[in-house]
Amino acid sequence: MAAQPRPVPADFHVFDTTLRDGSQQEGLSLSVADKLAITALLDELGVGFIEGGWPGANPGDTAYFAAMADGAVRLENSQLVSFGFTRRVGMRAADDPLTAALRDSRAPVACIVAKSHDRHVEQALRTTLDENLAMIADTVSHLRAEGQRVFVDCEHFFDGYRENRAYAHEVVRTAAEAGAEVVVLCDTNGGMLPPWVGEIVADTAGLGARLGIHAHNDTGCAVANTLAAVDAGASHVQGTVNGYGERTGNAELISVVANLELKYGWPLLPPGSLREASRLAHAIAEVTNVPPSARQPYVGMSSFAHKAGLHASAIKVDPNLYQHIDPAVVGNDMRMLVSDMAGRANIQMKGSELGFDLSDRDLAARITDRVKEREADGYTYEAADASFELLLRRELDQLPEFFAVHSWRMYTQGHPGGEGFPGGRVGDDSDTECTVKLTARGVTQRVVGEGNGPVNALDQALQNALLTAYPVVAEFGLTDYRVRILDQGHGTDATVRVLIQTTDGRRLWTTVGVGQNVIEASWEALSDAYLYGLLHAEAVDPAEDLGRLERV
Amino acid sequence: MAAQPRPVPADFHVFDTTLRDGSQQEGLSLSVADKLAITALLDELGVGFIEGGWPGANPGDTAYFAAMADGAVRLENSQLVSFGFTRRVGMRAADDPLTAALRDSRAPVACIVAKSHDRHVEQALRTTLDENLAMIADTVSHLRAEGQRVFVDCEHFFDGYRENRAYAHEVVRTAAEAGAEVVVLCDTNGGMLPPWVGEIVADTAGLGARLGIHAHNDTGCAVANTLAAVDAGASHVQGTVNGYGERTGNAELISVVANLELKYGWPLLPPGSLREASRLAHAIAEVTNVPPSARQPYVGMSSFAHKAGLHASAIKVDPNLYQHIDPAVVGNDMRMLVSDMAGRANIQMKGSELGFDLSDRDLAARITDRVKEREADGYTYEAADASFELLLRRELDQLPEFFAVHSWRMYTQGHPGGEGFPGGRVGDDSDTECTVKLTARGVTQRVVGEGNGPVNALDQALQNALLTAYPVVAEFGLTDYRVRILDQGHGTDATVRVLIQTTDGRRLWTTVGVGQNVIEASWEALSDAYLYGLLHAEAVDPAEDLGRLERV
Repeated sequence: MAAQPRPVPADFHVFDTTLRDGSQQEGLSLSVADKLAITALLDELGVGFIEGGWPGANPGDTAYFAAMADGAVRLENSQLVSFGFTRRVGMRAADDPLTAALRDSRAPVACIVAKSHDRHVEQALRTTLDENLAMIADTVSHLRAEGQRVFVDCEHFFDGYRENRAYAHEVVRTAAEAGAEVVVLCDTNGGMLPPWVGEIVADTAGLGARLGIHAHNDTGCAVANTLAAVDAGASHVQGTVNGYGERTGNAELISVVANLELKYGWPLLPPGSLREASRLAHAIAEVTNVPPSARQPYVGMSSFAHKAGLHASAIKVDPNLYQHIDPAVVGNDMRMLVSDMAGRANIQMKGSELGFDLSDRDLAARITDRVKEREADGYTYEAADASFELLLRRELDQLPEFFAVHSWRMYTQGHPGGEGFPGGRVGDDSDTECTVKLTARGVTQRVVGEGNGPVNALDQALQNALLTAYPVVAEFGLTDYRVRILDQGHGTDATVRVLIQTTDGRRLWTTVGVGQNVIEASWEALSDAYLYGLLHAEAVDPAEDLGRLERV
Repeated sequence: MAAQPRPVPADFHVFDTTLRDGSQQEGLSLSVADKLAITALLDELGVGFIEGGWPGANPGDTAYFAAMADGAVRLENSQLVSFGFTRRVGMRAADDPLTAALRDSRAPVACIVAKSHDRHVEQALRTTLDENLAMIADTVSHLRAEGQRVFVDCEHFFDGYRENRAYAHEVVRTAAEAGAEVVVLCDTNGGMLPPWVGEIVADTAGLGARLGIHAHNDTGCAVANTLAAVDAGASHVQGTVNGYGERTGNAELISVVANLELKYGWPLLPPGSLREASRLAHAIAEVTNVPPSARQPYVGMSSFAHKAGLHASAIKVDPNLYQHIDPAVVGNDMRMLVSDMAGRANIQMKGSELGFDLSDRDLAARITDRVKEREADGYTYEAADASFELLLRRELDQLPEFFAVHSWRMYTQGHPGGEGFPGGRVGDDSDTECTVKLTARGVTQRVVGEGNGPVNALDQALQNALLTAYPVVAEFGLTDYRVRILDQGHGTDATVRVLIQTTDGRRLWTTVGVGQNVIEASWEALSDAYLYGLLHAEAVDPAEDLGRLERV
C-alpha cells in the first residue's frame, strides 16, 4: 500500500444503508415519515445510493417505496435501492412474491443478499451449495430482465472465504455472470481486521467482478476495514450515517467519505456537499431520535473541541497546530470549551466570542475560578453559552435586574384511571399547578400557571408572571429540555442538571440549572432562560424602571 | 502484512492513559477519589501501566500520587506512571520543579512528552531544534539517574515525520540514547490512516529503539492505527478504557487488547482478566459518570444484542452464525432484544430466560403485539427486564395483587435563599412532600413521605405505605435513576421515560415508566419496582391474604 493512493476510480459508489441495515440498531424505530425525511437529507448529502428498506417483507417499507414512487421526495443526487433476499429455495424467481416486491418497489436498483458462506447455506438456508448458486443466478438475471440494476451483497463473505475460499469465489463469479453490477463483500459478523480484509479483497479482485465492501464495527475497525478494501480494489462502499446498525453498528459513512475526500483527495460527493456533513448528520440524528455521539469523527460536537489549556494557547497561535483538518470543511466548528481544565486562554477567547473584553489577567483569573467552582457543583457551560454569558455579566456586574422572584409553589396529583392494574397504575389524569410570586418593573404579583407536568407548569407560571411587564416573553418557547442525573448510583439523592433550549423565533439559546431535584434544577435553567431572552430582546429596557424595582 | 501475525513480542506493554489523556474529554471531571477508584479497576483489568496524571502541574494529580505512595490502592498487576513535559527551555532538568515533581510522585515510571515536529518546536515552544533535543536528552538522563524508568511520548510524531523526517528520527534517537525504554509515536492530531502509520512505524523501527503507539480517533481509525503500528513493530500500545479523550478520544484500549488477544492469540492481560472486561469497562464508566456507548465493541450493552427476527432465529440454531466471538470471553452477554423488530423467536427466548414457557404460538404472538404497542408508547424493555417480566405476568394473569393505589399528591416549594441574584435564584430550601393512599393486605392507609425532590418523596411515601404489610420493603433501595425526554424538540410537552434500578441487597432489577411528565413516569417505574421486589422476595406471600384485598 503506497503512501500515495491511486487516483479515484471512475464512478465510485457511495451507498447508504441507514434506512435498511442501520434501522436494526437497538433503540431505533423509524416511521415511514421518518424514512422520507432521512431520504431527503441523504439526498442533500449527495450519496450515490439510498437503500430504503425491504419491500414486501416490511409493510412499512412497502409503503415507503410507494410514497417514493409517488414523488414524496424528489431525488436530485441519489438513486433509490430496494433490498431483498435471493429467491426462496426450490422456487423460481419469477414466482417468488418477495422477488416481485423488489421490482414493484419501482426503485431503479435492487440489492439482494446472498449466502456466500457454505455453513450458512447448509444450516441457515438448509439447502445445497448448488441450489444456493442457482438461487443467486436466477434472482439476479430475473431482476435484470425486469429492468432493474442489481447489486449483490455476499453475506458472511470473509468468514465464508476463510472456511471455503473456492465456494465464496464461486458465489462472486455467479453473481457477476448473471448480471450483478457490483458484488459487495460483507463482513456480516464484523470480526475482520484491516490487513485480512485487504488480502481477501485483493485476492477476490482477481476474479474481475466490480467489488464493494460492507463492514461492521465489532472489532472497532469498520472504517479502516472499508478503507483497506478500497485500497485493495473495491470501488463501492456501504455504510450508515452516524454508524447506525445492529450490535456495534455499520461503518460510519461520513467518516469513510471524509477520509477519502480529504485524505485521498477523491471528490466523491457533489461539490460543496461535504461542508454540509455536520449539519446533515445532526439533522438525521434528530429524526432517528438517537442522540448523536459527541465524539464522532468529523461531525461530533466535541470532535474539534479543545479543552486543555495548553492546546487552546497553541491554537491562538495557529489552529493547525492541534487540528488535523480545518473543521469548516465538514461544517463543524472549532469550539473553545469553558471548563475546569481550561486556562485563561479559553476563557478569554470565549468571552471575546460573546463580545466581552477579558484581556485583564486578574479579571480572567477571577472568572476562571468562578467557572471551576460552578463546574465542581455540577454546572456545565460547555453546552450552555447563554448561562456562561450570564455568569460573566454577574461577575462584571453588568446584568440588569429584570425581575426578582420571592417564592414559588407547585402541586401535583395523580390517581388511578383507565386500566386499574393491580399495584395501582396511575392514569393520565395528572395535573400540575405552579404559583409564583415575583416583582417586575415595580409591580409585585402572585400568578398561577398550569401544565401537564412540573416543568411545563413552572414555565407557564413564569411566563404569565412576566407578561404584563415584558410582553415580549409571549414569543419565548422551550424547544428542548434535557435532564441528567449527576453522580449516578446514588438513587434519588443525586444532583440533577437540566439544560433548556429556548427560542424567540429568531435565535436559540441554552441555559443550565443544577439542583437537588429536577424541579429546582429546572427552575434555575428556566429563569435564566427568561433573563437571557429579555437581555437580548430589542424592545426591552429595564434601566428606565430600575429605580422602581423592589429589591428582595 | 501476513494473515498470520508474528508471535507475541516478549514483554508487550499495555499502557492506559485514562487518568491523564482520557481526562481531557469534554464532560469528564475526575476527583482524586474518582482517580483512585479507577486505578483499582484498571489494576484489576491487568493493564501493564497506569498513567495517573501530571504531578506538579495539576494539584489534584499531586495529591493523587501522594495517596498512591501512601498505599491508597495496592497495585497487583500495574505499574504507576507519572506524566510530564521535557524540562523548560534554557533551564537544567535538575533545576526544573516540574521535572522534580515526576520523581517526587514516587511512581516507578515517568512518561515525558517531547516535541518531535519541527514547527511545534519553533512556534509553540519558541526555541531551536537543537535546544529541543537537549531538553529531551537532559530530562531523560536526569530522571534515569534519579531512579525512574522513562518512556518518551513523541508529540505530533507522524505529522512531524512527514514535514521533516530527519528531525523526527533525531528525536527518537536522542530519547533512546539518553535512556528512554520506550519511544512512543503519537498521532496527536489524529489525522493518520492505517497504511500510513504502518509505513512510518516500519521506517522508524529501523532506528533500533523500542517503539510504542498513541493514537486518537479523528479519522475513526484509532484502533486500526494502533494495530497497524503493532504489525510494523511497535510493542507498546497506549489508549484509554471506553475511548475517553479530547475531541474524538484516544484509541479504545479494550478493543485493542481484545483484538490482539482474540484475533492474534496474544496473551497480554493476566489469565482470566479479559473475561472481566465488560464489567470493568462499565464500572469505570460509572465512576467517570459519562454514560458508556451501548455500541462500543466487545463490551457495549448492545454489542452482542440481536434484534432482527432473522438473526434471532439463526442464533437458536447456532450462536456462531451471527457472532464473531463468544461474548462470554469478554464477560458480555448475547442479549435477545425485545423490540418491535423482533419476531416470536426473540420473545420466546426472552420468556424462557425468565422462566416462562411461551412456546404456544398464539400466546407468543399476543405478547409480541403487546410489547410493540407499549414500545410505540415509549416503553423500552431492552433495558428493563423486571418490567418485561411484569408485562408477561399481566398477560398471563400471573401477577398477585400486593397493593392497590387509590391516589397520590405531591407538594413542593422553593424560595430564594443565599445569593439573591437578580432574577431570583432559588436557594436550596426546596422541600417536597408526597402523600399516598393505598390498600395492602386488606388495610387502607394514607401515608406521607418527604424528600429532597419529587422522586425521592414518592419513593419514601410508597415505602412508608407498604412497610406495615410488607416489612421486607425496608431493604429496598434505589441505586440508579435515569430520565430520558422522548421526542426531543417538543419542549416541555414531550413524553418522559424513566428507568429505575432497585436493590434489596442481593439482587438488582430495572423497571421502566412512561408519562407526560417526570413525576408520572417515575411513579410508574417506582411502583413496578416495589411490585417486582415483593414478587421475588422470599418472605412474602400475598396469596393468603388475597381474599382480604380491597379492589380499587
